Amino acid sequence: MDQVIEAVEDAFRSFDTDRTELRQREGFTLRNARTGVLEWMPVMRQGESITIKVVGYNPLNPKQYGVPTIIATNSVYDCGTGHLTAVVDGVLATALRTGAASAIASKCLANPDSRVVGLVGSGAQAVTQLHALSRLFSIERVNVFDVDPVAHRSFARRVAFLGLDVRAVPLEVVEAEADILCTVTSVGVGEGPVLEDGRLRPWVHVNAVGSDLPGKVELPRSLLERSLVCPDFLPQALVEGECQQLRPEQIGPGIIDVVQHPGRYEEWRGRSTVFDSTGFSLEDEAVTRVLTELARRHGLGLDVELECLAGDAMDPYDLLLPEHPPQAGQVAPGSLRPTIRVA
Amino acid sequence: MDQVIEAVEDAFRSFDTDRTELRQREGFTLRNARTGVLEWMPVMRQGESITIKVVGYNPLNPKQYGVPTIIATNSVYDCGTGHLTAVVDGVLATALRTGAASAIASKCLANPDSRVVGLVGSGAQAVTQLHALSRLFSIERVNVFDVDPVAHRSFARRVAFLGLDVRAVPLEVVEAEADILCTVTSVGVGEGPVLEDGRLRPWVHVNAVGSDLPGKVELPRSLLERSLVCPDFLPQALVEGECQQLRPEQIGPGIIDVVQHPGRYEEWRGRSTVFDSTGFSLEDEAVTRVLTELARRHGLGLDVELECLAGDAMDPYDLLLPEHPPQAGQVAPGSLRPTIRVA
Repeated sequence: MDQVIEAVEDAFRSFDTDRTELRQREGFTLRNARTGVLEWMPVMRQGESITIKVVGYNPLNPKQYGVPTIIATNSVYDCGTGHLTAVVDGVLATALRTGAASAIASKCLANPDSRVVGLVGSGAQAVTQLHALSRLFSIERVNVFDVDPVAHRSFARRVAFLGLDVRAVPLEVVEAEADILCTVTSVGVGEGPVLEDGRLRPWVHVNAVGSDLPGKVELPRSLLERSLVCPDFLPQALVEGECQQLRPEQIGPGIIDVVQHPGRYEEWRGRSTVFDSTGFSLEDEAVTRVLTELARRHGLGLDVELECLAGDAMDPYDLLLPEHPPQAGQVAPGSLRPTIRVA
Repeated sequence: MDQVIEAVEDAFRSFDTDRTELRQREGFTLRNARTGVLEWMPVMRQGESITIKVVGYNPLNPKQYGVPTIIATNSVYDCGTGHLTAVVDGVLATALRTGAASAIASKCLANPDSRVVGLVGSGAQAVTQLHALSRLFSIERVNVFDVDPVAHRSFARRVAFLGLDVRAVPLEVVEAEADILCTVTSVGVGEGPVLEDGRLRPWVHVNAVGSDLPGKVELPRSLLERSLVCPDFLPQALVEGECQQLRPEQIGPGIIDVVQHPGRYEEWRGRSTVFDSTGFSLEDEAVTRVLTELARRHGLGLDVELECLAGDAMDPYDLLLPEHPPQAGQVAPGSLRPTIRVA
C-alpha cells in the first residue's frame, strides 16, 4: 500500500498534459436486474505505454455469483508497436488505488490531527480506504456503518490485520465523531444521500468514493455547498460524481492541483472538505506499474505468448506454413500460442 | 476463412440494435516518426459478452521492428460479472475479418461474373482480401501493384497457396482490367488517392480498405461520386473512410442494410460500387467468436488464472491470508496467478 500511495501521489504531482493523455471513462450499461456497467478507462504515457482498465460494476455480483461488485482488468499496450505487454487483475488494483487516492486527498485536506475515521459502507473498498488512511494518520478509533448487517458485522474481522479499534455503530455515531469520513456504498441511483448533514464535525474531511453513475450520489447537497469539493477528474465527476449536484462555480480545485500546490489549500484543513473520488485512469496506470514491477522483481505472474508473429510481417499466414522453422523466442509454426506478460 | 465469412455475414444479417450495441472507435495518436494510432473498438451483445479490440496502427512497424503494421488484441468480457474471459491475438483476426467483409460486400455489389481481381497495395491485408474473394468468385487473374518493390514482387509467393494466376503489373493495368478492385495501402494522410479514375471498368466494384485516419483516402472523388458507396459503419466512415470526401446525400446504404436487403441493390451489380471498409467492431466480435470456438474445440490456447478471487468477496486481501485453504479451481493464497482463457 505504501508503494501504491507513493506511485499515485507521484502521478498526481508530476502530471503533465504534454506527456500524459487521459480519457474520460465510457461504457455499456448492462440490462441486469440492477443497473450494471462495463466501462473502459484509457490513459497514455506518450512514447511509453497505454493502460486501459476495463471495469465491470455489478451490484448483484456478491450475492448472485460470490464475486466482488467491481471486477476489473488492467491491460498495458506498448506505444511503439501496439503490442499488449501486460494483463493485470484489476480487482485488487482498483481497491488499492482507490484507497491510496483517498489517503492522499486526506493528507492534503483533512485536519492533520484527525484521530477518528468514519466509514459509511463496509464492503471491499472500505477495507483499502482504512488501510491507506492508517498509513498516513494515527487513527485512534474507526466507526463503521453499513445497511447490510453481514458487511456491518464482518468489517472488524476483515481489517483485523490493521490492529485498530474498529466499532460497528449506528450511522449517527459515524456522522457525529468522524474527523475523516469515507462513503463507500453501493447506494442505488436516486436513493442517496447515505448520510445526513446535521451532526458532522465542522472540520470533517469526506472521501466520497461510491458515486460512479449518473444520478448516484452519497452526500447531502448542503454539505457539498459549504465544503471545498475537490474532484479527482472533473469531466467524469460532473457526470457521475458528487459534482453532479453542484454548479461549476461551487466546485473547487482538482486533486492534481491540490497535490501540486498544497500550500494554497492549507487553510481548509480546519474546515469541511470533500474529495469527490470517481476513480480515474491516472490512478490505474500508477497501480498497474507498481504491480507489474513487483511481479517482475519477485518472479510472479506468467509470460504468455499471445501473438505468433510471422517471419514475414506481410504474410498473415506465415505461421501456418511448416517450411519455416521457428526462430528462438518464436513458437512452432502451426500452433497459436499467446505471447504477453500476465502479472 | 469460410467460417469467418459465414460468421461476419451472419452478424450483418442478424444485426439488431436491441441486442447489439456498437461504439465508434476512439483512440490515442502516437507521436512517432510517422503518424500512428492505438484505438479501442467496443461492441456488446446484451446479456452475453462485450468484445473490445485494441488495435495499433504503426506504419513503421515492418521496417523498424519487423512486425506487422497492424497489431491488435481482442479481449472478451462477460456481461454478467465483468470478468475477462478471453484474450485473442487480433493480428490474424483483423486480417481475416477484413478480407471476409470485402468478400461479403463484393458478393452483394460486384458483377457476379467477376473474373479479374485487382489489388493496389500488396501487404498483409491484401493476402486475406484475395483469399476471401477466392472463396466466393471464380478468379481467372489477379493483377497486383504496390509502390514498395519488395511487397510488389513477393505477393505472388505469399498467395501461392491459392493457386491463382497472380501478376505484378503497373498500376494502369490494375485499373484497366479489374472487375473487383481492392485498395489496401498505407498511403499517408493527404497523399491519396492511390489510383486514377479514367481507366476503370464501368462495372468495377471497389473494396476501399486502407482509409483509417482523418485525411487518409485512397479513391478519387469522381469515382465515389458516380458510384454506390456503401460504408461499413457510417459514423466511422464519415471520420476516417472514403465517405470523408462525400456529402451525406452522396452516401449509399450501409453494408448491414445491403446484406439484409440484397434485392434492393441488385441493379448496381452492373455499375460502379464502392465498399468503404473502415473495419468495425461487429466484424471483430464475429471473428473472435470463431477463433475462440475453434480453440476450444481443438484444445488450443491456454487457460490462465488472472484473478485470485477471495473466498470473501468483501475482503480484497483474503487471497493473502494463509489461514484460508485454496478451493478447487482456486490458486494457493498468496500467489497472484491469472485466471482467463487465452485463445
